Amino acid sequence: MKKFIDTVDNFLHESLEGFAKANSDIIDFNPEPRYIKRKTLKQPGKVALISGGGSGHEPLHIGFVGKGMLDAACPGQIFTSPSPDQMLAAAEAVEQGGGVLFVVKNYAGDVMNFEIASEMLEAANASVIVSDDVSLPKDHSTGRRGVAGTLIVEKMVGAAAETGATLAECKALGDRINLATASMGVALTSCTVPALGQPTFAIGDNEMEIGVGIHGERGRETVPLKSASEIVEHVATIIDDDLNPQKGQEILLHINGFGGTPLTELYLIYGLATKFWEQRGLVIARSLVGNYTTALDMAGCSITITLLDDELKRMWDAPVHTASLRWGDQ
Amino acid sequence: MKKFIDTVDNFLHESLEGFAKANSDIIDFNPEPRYIKRKTLKQPGKVALISGGGSGHEPLHIGFVGKGMLDAACPGQIFTSPSPDQMLAAAEAVEQGGGVLFVVKNYAGDVMNFEIASEMLEAANASVIVSDDVSLPKDHSTGRRGVAGTLIVEKMVGAAAETGATLAECKALGDRINLATASMGVALTSCTVPALGQPTFAIGDNEMEIGVGIHGERGRETVPLKSASEIVEHVATIIDDDLNPQKGQEILLHINGFGGTPLTELYLIYGLATKFWEQRGLVIARSLVGNYTTALDMAGCSITITLLDDELKRMWDAPVHTASLRWGDQ
Repeated sequence: MKKFIDTVDNFLHESLEGFAKANSDIIDFNPEPRYIKRKTLKQPGKVALISGGGSGHEPLHIGFVGKGMLDAACPGQIFTSPSPDQMLAAAEAVEQGGGVLFVVKNYAGDVMNFEIASEMLEAANASVIVSDDVSLPKDHSTGRRGVAGTLIVEKMVGAAAETGATLAECKALGDRINLATASMGVALTSCTVPALGQPTFAIGDNEMEIGVGIHGERGRETVPLKSASEIVEHVATIIDDDLNPQKGQEILLHINGFGGTPLTELYLIYGLATKFWEQRGLVIARSLVGNYTTALDMAGCSITITLLDDELKRMWDAPVHTASLRWGDQ
Repeated sequence: MKKFIDTVDNFLHESLEGFAKANSDIIDFNPEPRYIKRKTLKQPGKVALISGGGSGHEPLHIGFVGKGMLDAACPGQIFTSPSPDQMLAAAEAVEQGGGVLFVVKNYAGDVMNFEIASEMLEAANASVIVSDDVSLPKDHSTGRRGVAGTLIVEKMVGAAAETGATLAECKALGDRINLATASMGVALTSCTVPALGQPTFAIGDNEMEIGVGIHGERGRETVPLKSASEIVEHVATIIDDDLNPQKGQEILLHINGFGGTPLTELYLIYGLATKFWEQRGLVIARSLVGNYTTALDMAGCSITITLLDDELKRMWDAPVHTASLRWGDQ
């Protein structure tokens, strides 16, 4: 296993300690129960925005804690849901009287544990379940998975919470963004979970995985390696068919790397994706390119679009100051 | 070859097109001769800061063009020096009467081509040669290579140029930062140059490369895989011996990923490196963790420190607004 690691058991803790030291101006790290919280909390009545999930997707979610985005994030073990006591402790640490909104990626373990935390939490709370992965059909038995679109929900709802939106407004906004967002990923390699020590799935030198999940789950299909243009055409068509945007629609285009793919290739995919949607009459009004929702060291990327309106553009443009997303007034 | 690519011939151009589209608020892309330049140029008398080098190290240098950092960057083919006509065209496009400072990584081809451009350019100009890689001895025949410390030179000198420093002052500052900076890298895998289609060097499943360059050059030694703690101890000791900082010295600690290593592992290395230098009585006053000076898809990282003083801290903290480095007033 080719990783910078001491032991499997302390990998996550050492990594979080390093993250916390490098970003001590923005966040605090509580090791037990484990959560990362925003350092500055002086907005009585503000809705507290909390997310979490298995680790291995960094910077999601820990890198998005800070002004204009999350108030806390609960990292589970690699690809494993955090426990309700982490969520509860985080909620109690950051709740300021405005209630708590949990942003939950749609995986059975995460949904269950956030539900338990929600029931145990005394403060008013609600949840947004993110399910933007269109590689599974809409009527899939456990619903669609939450993937790179989660960042967009967290950014925009974070902006709303920062500027005084109520819990009900934040929840409604989050649900609305989720419905306006679609993602799909492709992988060129598997990833290697430290505790397993070998790639999660086998894939041939001339094969790729279409519709892959962010835990190294096999995708819709294993196909021979395609060119970048063919990949974008294939994936963008599925996304476009799902959201079915009208001509003239403004979109946010997010190209997300899975951790093992360099920026050069992500920009190449971005350029091809802009051409695809511009040819269909859409307007790329906002964009984000980089490794944001990763699957450890997997080589691959996902394409996400969100259909924008004036409110969503305002929420996207609002200042954000976190470890991994930063713009506007600091 | 597992890459998002259409053809080897148009890989770089398609990637730069995507980069330019995604960052059209900050930069302009001139395809022939090829350079990226800052969009807003309205500071008569400002020193123009220009860098460049082989592509494949993104975001270096293109991602660092913008307010408070570079005025232009000249991307060569993958791992190949740009040509003097690119540098000359870029210089003529961004020169505002304050002269031009070239920031050049110490590789024979880059140094030669920047020298030719320097001689051809009518405007006053100077060069800073970055040579921060301590994996080679100080008296190495072609000098030490320029690696991740280049970003630090570009950031700090960019801040000085932005606030009115003269060409001579910028040149002296750049040379001073270079002498105060030391880097060393380790690789767990090779990288794959598109035109080659296969890994640049062979490395066993249980081996790693110590002192590797950013072009997949073999390092000082190939050794059995070590733990993260052993790697940090080994590399940080060589860096520390080279700069020989005094107790109480403030440093900037930069952990740089080579493109195929996820953030989780870089933060783990960061945490261990902070412990190493704190135990030696140094103060980690500033830090940067992420994939900034890459070698295509190589898995690995480098550790860089810069010895700080009040001026360098001010230059590091100054606002920067580029595609890949952004803080302070926007």
